[in-house]
Amino acid sequence: MAGKVAARRAALRENLILIAERTISEKGLSALRARDLASEAGCAVGAIYNVFGDLTDLVLAVNARTFHRLGADVAAALAEAPQDPSEQLVIMAQAYHRFAAENHLSWRALFDVERAPGEAAPDWYLQEMGQLFAYIANPLQVIFPDRDAHELELLTRALFSSIHGIVLLGLDEASAGVPTDEIERMIALVLRQITSS
Amino acid sequence: MAGKVAARRAALRENLILIAERTISEKGLSALRARDLASEAGCAVGAIYNVFGDLTDLVLAVNARTFHRLGADVAAALAEAPQDPSEQLVIMAQAYHRFAAENHLSWRALFDVERAPGEAAPDWYLQEMGQLFAYIANPLQVIFPDRDAHELELLTRALFSSIHGIVLLGLDEASAGVPTDEIERMIALVLRQITSS
Repeated sequence: MAGKVAARRAALRENLILIAERTISEKGLSALRARDLASEAGCAVGAIYNVFGDLTDLVLAVNARTFHRLGADVAAALAEAPQDPSEQLVIMAQAYHRFAAENHLSWRALFDVERAPGEAAPDWYLQEMGQLFAYIANPLQVIFPDRDAHELELLTRALFSSIHGIVLLGLDEASAGVPTDEIERMIALVLRQITSS
Repeated sequence: MAGKVAARRAALRENLILIAERTISEKGLSALRARDLASEAGCAVGAIYNVFGDLTDLVLAVNARTFHRLGADVAAALAEAPQDPSEQLVIMAQAYHRFAAENHLSWRALFDVERAPGEAAPDWYLQEMGQLFAYIANPLQVIFPDRDAHELELLTRALFSSIHGIVLLGLDEASAGVPTDEIERMIALVLRQITSS
């Protein structure tokens, strides 16, 4: 009996994640409502909270999948990139931009989820982020062999944040109808300047 | 009579902006609700929509004031800066960071307000943004005298977006308890690299 209950619970969990994933990707994080989720999943609103502590937990489960897809895209781009470290950074940044453009609302949800003040990001988030940062740190280490580990770590975070900012504001403008085929040029411009040692 | 009605309307408008400004700065954009606003302003919910088309219009009125304060802070920092163009960029970026840190939720609201797809930013926003960009473009022109106008414009936007990304992700980490006294170092690191011609 316990096995059946656990299986039903797992099935509902998976189903809620899929429904929330589609809602977020089509309408954005702010469109997510417990009532609508329950109605689409064919369960009571209370059943959602038996499976997830609150809607934020559900969003985090969706975000874990989004982040994983993002990481896979960046890794795939890197696998095809030439050995040149600057070129590797540009190719990864372009993959990041492409993923963000093609999965705009899901990508926004990665960063827009509200955490209670003082609450740290979940472990899986830190791990995925750490993996992304390692991809960036490797070519930086080749470009700047003389910088110490701490400075390289700062530069890695600064570079990721810079590309993130360019993509974020660029896609905001794109959604407002401003042409942004120049996002790629801005990325290349900044990376070229940053990596010219 | 028409004068009295107009004056009452103007007073309600001003009052709603002040209430919304405080709500956003203390609790964030997502805490803004017409019912609460009406109750605090002592008016009917419908009266809000006589003055503002919708809540987004009210948020934009608050954002106009926030953006204006931000611009004034950056201008004040620039007025005290030395003639060195790289130094001017660092000082403006630090002023941007300081403003964002001290007015975190109001600053977030500048970028988090939802626009209908395809809807352009309002004119005042483009003007304030244009003014900020002019502050950045001037020292860049001194640093890169040989770049053409279009490339300088791209570099200006890229540089602003980069600093924005560093401040945004840095403050997110700070609100999650991660120590981020290193935001200033990341800003300096990126600017130093970008402006080394």
